[in-house]
Parts: sequence; C-alpha cells; structure tokens
Amino acid sequence: MHRKIMDISKRRGIMYPSFEIYGGVSGFYDYGPVGSRIKQNIESLIRNYYVIDEECLEVECPTLSPEAVWIASGHVGNFTDLMTECLKCGEAYRSDHLIEEHLKKSCEGMHISQLNDLIEKNRIKCPKCGGNLGKIYNYNLMFQTFVGPGKNKESAYLRPETAQTTYLAFRRLWEAARKKLPFGVIQIGRSFRNEISPRQGMVRLREFNQAEIQFFVEPDRKSVENFDEVSKIKTRVVTKDDKEFDMSLESAVKKGIMKVQMIAYFLGRSLQLFERMGINPKALKLRQHKDEERAFYSTDTWDIEYISKIFGKIELVGISDRTDYDLKAHMNLSKQDLTVSYEGKKFIPHVIEIAYGIDRPFYCVIESCYREEGDRTFFKFPKEISPYRTGIFPLVRKDNLPEKARAVFELMKKERIHAFYDQTGSIGKRYARADEIGIPECVTIDYETIEDNTVTLRDRDTKKQIRVKIDELTMYLMNKM
Amino acid sequence: MHRKIMDISKRRGIMYPSFEIYGGVSGFYDYGPVGSRIKQNIESLIRNYYVIDEECLEVECPTLSPEAVWIASGHVGNFTDLMTECLKCGEAYRSDHLIEEHLKKSCEGMHISQLNDLIEKNRIKCPKCGGNLGKIYNYNLMFQTFVGPGKNKESAYLRPETAQTTYLAFRRLWEAARKKLPFGVIQIGRSFRNEISPRQGMVRLREFNQAEIQFFVEPDRKSVENFDEVSKIKTRVVTKDDKEFDMSLESAVKKGIMKVQMIAYFLGRSLQLFERMGINPKALKLRQHKDEERAFYSTDTWDIEYISKIFGKIELVGISDRTDYDLKAHMNLSKQDLTVSYEGKKFIPHVIEIAYGIDRPFYCVIESCYREEGDRTFFKFPKEISPYRTGIFPLVRKDNLPEKARAVFELMKKERIHAFYDQTGSIGKRYARADEIGIPECVTIDYETIEDNTVTLRDRDTKKQIRVKIDELTMYLMNKM
Repeated sequence: MHRKIMDISKRRGIMYPSFEIYGGVSGFYDYGPVGSRIKQNIESLIRNYYVIDEECLEVECPTLSPEAVWIASGHVGNFTDLMTECLKCGEAYRSDHLIEEHLKKSCEGMHISQLNDLIEKNRIKCPKCGGNLGKIYNYNLMFQTFVGPGKNKESAYLRPETAQTTYLAFRRLWEAARKKLPFGVIQIGRSFRNEISPRQGMVRLREFNQAEIQFFVEPDRKSVENFDEVSKIKTRVVTKDDKEFDMSLESAVKKGIMKVQMIAYFLGRSLQLFERMGINPKALKLRQHKDEERAFYSTDTWDIEYISKIFGKIELVGISDRTDYDLKAHMNLSKQDLTVSYEGKKFIPHVIEIAYGIDRPFYCVIESCYREEGDRTFFKFPKEISPYRTGIFPLVRKDNLPEKARAVFELMKKERIHAFYDQTGSIGKRYARADEIGIPECVTIDYETIEDNTVTLRDRDTKKQIRVKIDELTMYLMNKM
Repeated sequence: MHRKIMDISKRRGIMYPSFEIYGGVSGFYDYGPVGSRIKQNIESLIRNYYVIDEECLEVECPTLSPEAVWIASGHVGNFTDLMTECLKCGEAYRSDHLIEEHLKKSCEGMHISQLNDLIEKNRIKCPKCGGNLGKIYNYNLMFQTFVGPGKNKESAYLRPETAQTTYLAFRRLWEAARKKLPFGVIQIGRSFRNEISPRQGMVRLREFNQAEIQFFVEPDRKSVENFDEVSKIKTRVVTKDDKEFDMSLESAVKKGIMKVQMIAYFLGRSLQLFERMGINPKALKLRQHKDEERAFYSTDTWDIEYISKIFGKIELVGISDRTDYDLKAHMNLSKQDLTVSYEGKKFIPHVIEIAYGIDRPFYCVIESCYREEGDRTFFKFPKEISPYRTGIFPLVRKDNLPEKARAVFELMKKERIHAFYDQTGSIGKRYARADEIGIPECVTIDYETIEDNTVTLRDRDTKKQIRVKIDELTMYLMNKM
C-alpha cells in the first residue's frame, strides 16, 4: 500500500522527496501541485475553526530567531537527542533507537551512562559498517546559523516550534486582545528540527509545517463554557500508566483522568477537525504523555495518535498545559514585565497549547482516504479537502465540444470554483485520472450539451452520473461544498 | 507620517519589529493579529489570480536546501555584496552604499579595486567610530547551516528566492502540466537574505515573504493571446538608459522598449493587482534594469517601483526573462535530463519569472491607504484587503444590547464573515478604533434593534450611517465583498 500511495503521489504531483535530482536529503518533502491544494485546505480548516469559531488572534513571526530566545525557552539546553557516532564510518545514530532495535525493549527515560553501559555490555556495533560506536553525547536538534556579517555576527537558530515566537510579543497581543482573559493566538508556519536520521517519509521531517495555538488563561481557570458541545464524544483513551479505556470525554474529566477541562475540550474539537479532514476516527487514540516522556515545559500533555498501517503510531496534535513556564522564562531573561493585571489580581498567565502538525495530518488524510476497488484506485477526500472541486472534460476533441467545455471552465473561474480542465485521452482515462487525485465530481460536456445545455456530473465514490443544467452547475457545486 | 504609521502599527497589532523584548535584530518583523489578516488577503489576491485565472500549478518546497542547489544556481558564487568592516569596532558596511552616502554619487557597476581606491582617496572612515576600514571583499548573502549530525553533516543554505526550489522538480511539474507549454508554477513562502545592515523597516528584511511565478515557455514564444486585456494601460515607464515616458503597454511593446510581450502583459496584470490591493497607482513606475544592475541569470528585467514618501523607491515585483539559464545549470550539475519534447522539437524551456515581494506591497498598502482627516486617522483599505469585514458593537453595555450584539456576531461566524466584536468604551471610541485598523463598515446594535431588528451600518470613509435589517445583514455584507 505504501508503495502504491507513494507511486501515485509522485506521479500525480501530490508530494515527493525534495531535491530528487541531487539525490535528495532525508527529512525534506515537496508539496506538488495537487498536494499543495490539499495541504492548504487542511490549514484553512484549522485556521477558520480557531480564528472564527474560537476568536483567536493570528500572528506570523520569523522562523529564524536570535539565541537569547532559545536560551530562555530551554531549547539550547534541553532540546537534544542522545547520539552516538560510528568511529569508523562516521554514521550517526539516536542511541535509544539503536539500542531498542538491537535489544527489542524500551529504554525510555534512561540516562547516558545506562545507555553507554548497554552498548558496551551487548557489544552493539554500527549497523552500517560494523565499526565501534563512540561515547553517547547530547546532540542539539536546532539548526544554527549566524545573522549579520563579519565579527559582529549573532548566533541564531531556526525555530523548532512556533510557540516561542508567539510568546515574545505577549505584551502586544495582550493589548490586541483588549486585556481580557482567556484569549487564543494561532500561528501557522514552518519549523525545523535537525533530526539525526529521519527515515519515515513525511512523518518525520527536518523542515515541517505547524499550526500552534496558545491560549492564555488565568492559572486557576482552565475550563470552557461550552464543554458540553464535545463532552459526549467517545474515543479510546490511553493514560500515562498505560491503561486503555473506551470512554467519553465527559467521563474522562469526571474520573480525573483528564485533569484540565480545556485539554479535554480541545481534544474533542481536534477529533472533530480530523474527522472533517477525512481521517478515519477509528484509527485515532488519545494518549497521555508519561512523566519521563513529557517535554520539560509541560505539566500535562495529551496527544491524538493515528495508528498508521505503514508507520505505526503518528502523533497528530499535542495539547499541553505549559503553565507559566515560557512567559516566566522570557520575563527572567529579558527583564521585561510579562505579568498582567486582571480582575484585581496581578499574575503571569498560564498557557494551554494546541500544537498541530500539518504534514502528519496531511499524510494520514492520504492514507485514510486511499481506496482500491477492483483495478480502480481513488482518494475519498471530503469536498472541503479535495484538491479541485471539479474536473471539466469535453467528451471528445472535436465537434465544438472543447470550445463548449472551455466556456464551462471559464464559468467556474468566474465563480472562483477551483476546477481542473482536461481534454487528453479517453473519457474513461480522464475519470480514472480524476479519481486518482480525489476530485469529488467531474463534469463532461457531450453531444447532449450542444442540444440542451446540460452536462453529465459523475460522482467519484458511486460512479453514478446525473444530468445538470449548465445554468445551475455553479450553484449546484457551491451548495454541495 | 512614518512615526504615526509605526505607532498605530505597533499599538494595534499590524506589524512590529520581532524579538523586541530582547532588543530586536534588524531585518525581522512580526505580523500582528491585524497585519496577518491583511498579509493573507494580499497573498490570496495574488494566489487566486495566478492559480485560477492563469491556471498556474502551485508548489511548496523547503526553505532549507543543500549546497548543490545553490552552486548550480550560481548563488554560492555570485549572490554577494561588496563589504568592508571597520578595523577598530568591527561594524560592517556595504561598501557601495557607504561610498555613495559619502560622495553623494552613484558607484553602480564599479569593481572592488575601484571602490577600494575611492575609500582610500577620499579617506572614508567608519561612520560609527571613525576607525579605518578594511579591504573590501565579496560577502555571500545566504544564511548557511548544516543538515544532519556529526562528521557526515551536509552544508545547506536558506533559500534566497523560491524560484530554484521550483525548478528542481521540473520533470514532475512537466508531468502534472500534461506535457504542454506554456505553463506557470507559483510558490508562495519565506526566503532569506543575510543583508549586511538592513535599515529600512519592512522594506529590507532578512527573512521575507515572496510569491514567485515561473512560466515555462517555448524559447521563441514569449507572447500571450490576451495581451489586449491590459495593452491600453497607461503608466510611467523608465528604460535602462534612464529615459522616462508616459505610455501604454501596447506602445511600449510596439516601440521595442519592452521586447518580451509576456513581460509587458504581467507588468499590466501586476499594476491591476496592486491597484486592487489599494496601492496608489500614481505612485507606481515601471523600470527596466540597467545592464550592470541586472541579475546574472536574466537577459531582461523590469520592476514595478512604488515611490514611497518615506523610503523612496521600493521594488514591488521584478519580471525577468531568465531564459534557460537555471534549468540548464541544474541539468549540467545534476546530470539529469531537463529537456522536453514538444511539438516535434527537443529543447530546454525558457522561464519568464514574476517575483513579488509580499512584505513590500504590504507596507505600500499601509502607506497608500493611510488617511488623516482632522483628528481622525484611518486606513482606506479595499474590502478584499481589510483585516475584518465588519465590527459588531452594542451601543451600551446594558439593557440586553450586548446579548443581542453577540447574537449578530454569532450570525457572522456562521456565515464565515470575519468580524470583530467590541463592547469596551464609548461607541465613538470604538468607531475610531475600527477606523484605525481600516474596517470598512461597522454594525451597531442599539435600542431600535430591540424594537424592529434593524442595526446601524456605519461607513468608514464617509462616516454615513444607514439602517439594515438583521435578516439582510449577511447578504448585504457578502454582496458588497
């Protein structure tokens, strides 16, 4: 299945490894002409939900930020993986992964000395050349560069998350939010992690896309008014001590499994968003981070994981209670006051963060929507996610049908309906091509069209065909959107 | 005026320098909650025009790319500024700018030795500390970093333009375009230039946003069918030998001033786009690059420049005939075949590139739309650019008016109309606040609303007020969009 999906993806311009003509570099992918449309639809779905429904502010900040930001945030000190290099060929490995592969057991939470011991005791060698492995050390996952020229240049890092760059302008955001809590701020953009050896296609990228939302809240008010809108959602829940339940969000909160109501609320909203994207809800689990796995800035974190047929667990979103960790850290290092005065109290707001990947949901949409029926393959994308709303095809390339079809295509353009025009090959092949990129409905202009101004509308999923008047076509397509 | 614009921008969350709490780093700006909406509207305007009207494909590629890409493109060798550093304090200068400021004359096209002579002869010293200046050298403007860990890490650069990353996947794009010429590919995203000392706010950024379109064409067919749709546009034209005319695009082509019809066509389309954004067309000029100024990859380049009251000339878009320079270079270095077979011929396609900045048009929209009338300041943004479509205000905070206003606000949300809710301060102050961020029309819920379900709709530009039924409000706002 993975080979088939990748084959269609490359051939039809969904996504493919970057820099292929130079042999590629692992951890980098391009969105092609079809994929970029799907990706933007996924981003819009998240953006519109948070900006319009949750009334979030949106910001866009640089991806490159000076060192001070990442010292304050703790990333210079703590954003590391434990690495070992082969002393012979120089190949680098994440030591925990290497040991786990070798011993077939988890070494989560182990310290450097324990891992070094395991390598020595089990005589683990370089899987590539058999050479001896060097001592394990902390390897920082940020890309470093320098801003400005000459002697006065400044150290800077590509951000490993958007969140910090949102926090920096907190005082301006507080003004923009008219000095009321809670308020949310969304940032959608690129982030970077210099992974040691990424090997899972789009699932582990060195340059990736995120949509991260920071809700600034009162420290003792991490609840929402409209929890009942999601409370009945039932799902699979895995707690930090590895207990697994099927339960509603409401009972997860009542039983104290989810201690922060806002986290439960946005887990529910995220489940709804993923379902709207076309991700199979049965493949999703809510999983609480274990104490030893949780990031240094968080007191409680829940992920939504997708169980991929190819890659196993994929984390789609992480929702964390970051407390006042980040604002306090920036306040301490910058000496700027980041406290607020609100309803008679003076305090540093707490942060509930909802951190979506974009590339991972994108991949899971592709995997979830992939269908094989006989010799037909298609993507069952929901309409709001599909790369084009419709395809416009003249039945044959003569008898004025292409001209008529172009006129229908121009009508689509005028109404800003994103359509795909194609007149090459048999009509059957063109339907197959449209199916392969998941166009929900295609329009064929045929001899009947010349007579009565109707067209054939063919459904991707059922293959059923109906006749629609050209005059009603744009309304038809827009109503169904 | 600049101080006033920057003051509103910072106070109201339009844009502001990044990392302010750490003292800032020149060349980096944040888009705040209001600015991000305007910026995205500008991007959408460009995207929709090229993707829908011009049927361009869209791609998104990494900003970080391996060294080979930039060796092939010529950027490792040629993407440089001539720099000199103070031997005493270490301050770095672009030597041409430094000499021009000192001598008040242009030194465009001069070589290193000539510039070194000028510094020596005129005894030009460090403007900051008076120290002696070191020898001028070529300073590469790309940010460098390394991908992967340890000994096997690879040199990589943050892209200085999106174009190259589009070219790399040419073979896949050729497939996606169904092997027909011409076809266009748009990429919208971040690029980076490590400027020596950027000092013009948003106009010269180290991390910036671009929308670059590459049209792949037959070498001898750089014309368009529908040139007549823009040919009558009259504008100011400055040729490479500094002659200035007011003329139509049609006569510029006829007189051989614009040799490539496609360039003239997209200059016309760009003028239309800038006008739709709200940029004052009278402040725009078309200017041909001089031979010595033109980039190494281009045989002809035209810019559209905005004449700013603050910064002087600002380049908003550059349209270039890049010939087969880039594809040929990548073909040579990668040894991959990038020729096409088309209509019986085999050749490397030529490229006509339209390269928009996003941040500069954004700034020019702000400057162009800024108005002062008495003690009132407002931004006269066109509706498709304004950060919010409308503002929703209860007249007072009692008598059930806030509840009624929230209900109208929820109606807006349901219709996905981006609205701004505000109930703090007097209604006059709220209108003033809405004006300051350029909301075109605001809705006030007052005592009459309770009686007859009508609201006041107040126009930003005329300050006129009319009554509209709540039932008709969303249709009214959407029709007027």
